[in-house]
Amino acid sequence: MSAVPEPAAETVVMKFGGSSVADPEKIRHVARRLVQARERGVRVVSTVSAMGKTTDSLLELASQVSPHPHPRELDMLLSTGERVACALVAMAVHDLGQEAVSFTGSQAGILTDSVHTRAKIRQITPVRVLQALDDGRIVLVAGFQGFSRDTMDVTTLGRGAGDLTAVALAATLGAACEIYSDVPGVFTADPRLVPDARKLETVSYEEMLEMAASGARVLALRAVELARGHDVPIHARSTFSEEPGTWVQDVAGMEEPIISAVTHSEDEVLFTLRGVPDRPGVAAAIFEAVAGEHVSVDTILQNAVHGSAELSFSVPREDVVATRKALDTAQESIGAIEIEEVGDLGKVSLIGAGMRSHPGVAAQMFRTLADEGINLRLISTSPIKITCLVGSDEVEGAVVALHRRFLSGDAASGRSE
Amino acid sequence: MSAVPEPAAETVVMKFGGSSVADPEKIRHVARRLVQARERGVRVVSTVSAMGKTTDSLLELASQVSPHPHPRELDMLLSTGERVACALVAMAVHDLGQEAVSFTGSQAGILTDSVHTRAKIRQITPVRVLQALDDGRIVLVAGFQGFSRDTMDVTTLGRGAGDLTAVALAATLGAACEIYSDVPGVFTADPRLVPDARKLETVSYEEMLEMAASGARVLALRAVELARGHDVPIHARSTFSEEPGTWVQDVAGMEEPIISAVTHSEDEVLFTLRGVPDRPGVAAAIFEAVAGEHVSVDTILQNAVHGSAELSFSVPREDVVATRKALDTAQESIGAIEIEEVGDLGKVSLIGAGMRSHPGVAAQMFRTLADEGINLRLISTSPIKITCLVGSDEVEGAVVALHRRFLSGDAASGRSE
Repeated sequence: MSAVPEPAAETVVMKFGGSSVADPEKIRHVARRLVQARERGVRVVSTVSAMGKTTDSLLELASQVSPHPHPRELDMLLSTGERVACALVAMAVHDLGQEAVSFTGSQAGILTDSVHTRAKIRQITPVRVLQALDDGRIVLVAGFQGFSRDTMDVTTLGRGAGDLTAVALAATLGAACEIYSDVPGVFTADPRLVPDARKLETVSYEEMLEMAASGARVLALRAVELARGHDVPIHARSTFSEEPGTWVQDVAGMEEPIISAVTHSEDEVLFTLRGVPDRPGVAAAIFEAVAGEHVSVDTILQNAVHGSAELSFSVPREDVVATRKALDTAQESIGAIEIEEVGDLGKVSLIGAGMRSHPGVAAQMFRTLADEGINLRLISTSPIKITCLVGSDEVEGAVVALHRRFLSGDAASGRSE
Repeated sequence: MSAVPEPAAETVVMKFGGSSVADPEKIRHVARRLVQARERGVRVVSTVSAMGKTTDSLLELASQVSPHPHPRELDMLLSTGERVACALVAMAVHDLGQEAVSFTGSQAGILTDSVHTRAKIRQITPVRVLQALDDGRIVLVAGFQGFSRDTMDVTTLGRGAGDLTAVALAATLGAACEIYSDVPGVFTADPRLVPDARKLETVSYEEMLEMAASGARVLALRAVELARGHDVPIHARSTFSEEPGTWVQDVAGMEEPIISAVTHSEDEVLFTLRGVPDRPGVAAAIFEAVAGEHVSVDTILQNAVHGSAELSFSVPREDVVATRKALDTAQESIGAIEIEEVGDLGKVSLIGAGMRSHPGVAAQMFRTLADEGINLRLISTSPIKITCLVGSDEVEGAVVALHRRFLSGDAASGRSE
């Protein structure tokens, strides 16, 4: 006559970005969402970013004090922003009659390497988080930060690390992951450019990775990579609406649509390097130097011509100065090369796991753009993405035309709402 | 032929208040002072308060989010202010070519009890501070905060705790203690009221305690108490000048002057309780209730009249609401009493260790005030202090007259500059 054990309650990690906690009223709103989830019987962990533009203000303050802020001290400084936001949300939860407790990254057991300002998570030992959940509390965890056991110092995790913290916690706790922002989900194109863009119900990790890398700002790339590696479904949804958003997860439908979305970014700069020695290790030397300046290169093309290679890649405009510096460094080891820069470019990408088995999509994409009179400066393809560089002023026309051709009305089916 | 061991370098704890680090330029100025000390060969520890009005802003933010902010979360919130300031000063020190490292209260080993928003320091285990000093670094310690080993939570130490942190660190490290602010030292009276007030070279702990308790704002009471208990000399001096300030220490001169200073405060409220039962434990019940509301009562007088007592005490205006609440509580156990409140009062005190052996001072003080036509509402004396409550509008005249009588020109001698 032993009692049937109660099933373990579900755990959810709810992540709110800086714009969701920008002022006291929004903080109380976030608290209400956490309390609603708790009252449904769910165990609630929440990571919260710094309020509004706090991180930018702290960076500005640091730059006024020091031309090159010491990285360890910069992490001590920046990590305060998320702590403030978490403490305030916890206060607001208390006022709604639920118990809450806020933890720093260190208290939550987020252990990282000791590379300041861009640390990587090594392990999460959420002893205090689990204890607090067992006590029935709503747990706030300061995002974007961790702790190095090697140096006993506070670290921060770099760009996009708020989402990353949420996914890492969800993976560790076996929890669902909800990422809230001021957009309601992932769309077939930017609704500001394409009014009939539709919200997707589901999208695969691979597609989301390609979207994040090619201009969609709903989720941070590192977070999607981690979610895919640990098979954590992410629900990307709106802070200010009860409507479901978009699920990012393993998609194994019977009839996957060919194309999921058109993404774009503006302000790309194309570097073309000529006279690159055509021998092993040269490309590695160049991109090691580029990576050393923390520039993420999305699109790389190389053609060998007469014993020397021509190599092109694009970077966002904000990374141009760092890229030039990296190329100077690279030339010290590989010798002088000719470098051409072309600005005023934008990137348009067609994303879709279904295109793996539909090789004709690329040709249809190029035909659609040609019919609009759009000239392609660079083409790059992967099994689930085709990217074209076009003139900045042609980006909008390209997105509209591609969405009309592949995604609107009868062109699409299936996973949209 | 063994080498003569080098004498251990002197250690100094330098404390800077919020107005000393209110903007980037002032932060760089503080960094220069720390580097100058380090370059003289001194081992430098510095505690820094939150920038300018940061703590007030954080409190205001908390009050906008929650009517009664949860104390644990309030400590998480408030402790960020000092961390920001310390990280910024450390950056500025690096730019001047010296190594620096900032520590949170917890990293510095400041262990407290777990009473949030007014924790008491139990112990300091400065392992990391000592290691960093041995490595030749300038060490910044976030003031005003500690860490409870019982709960593993961040605590803050309450009002005046920046000075307290500095003295506690100095006591633990066997260091000198320098407390910097925007005033150049301890004066014989407030220079805004008495233009010929003089800066004191030295003042005893006891006098400084009486001054801190009766209106002088140079040093926090708790810090002076701790310094006295551990025999830590404090040098109270200006952030913006190289001139020596005032030493607070054991004074054992041959010819102590009778009077050191006139202090004052405005906005006092006098509570008079009548019909208080004249039996043991009643006064204790009343002042336990008052202390339970965290009101510090400075001056208490009691007279037994016909089997019931009349009891008077004064509190600062900001504590009136809490005091009323405490008296309501007390009446639940001791029964109803008659309560009179008189506002618009100020406190004027004459401080001097020398008056212990000069019993005529009180009479001279009352005569001086009577000659000015000032009526005394309450008188309280200790071996080194005489305090009178007067009308708010009579405070300035009383300070000027007492300084003229006891401290200016030929009236004084000895320890002033």
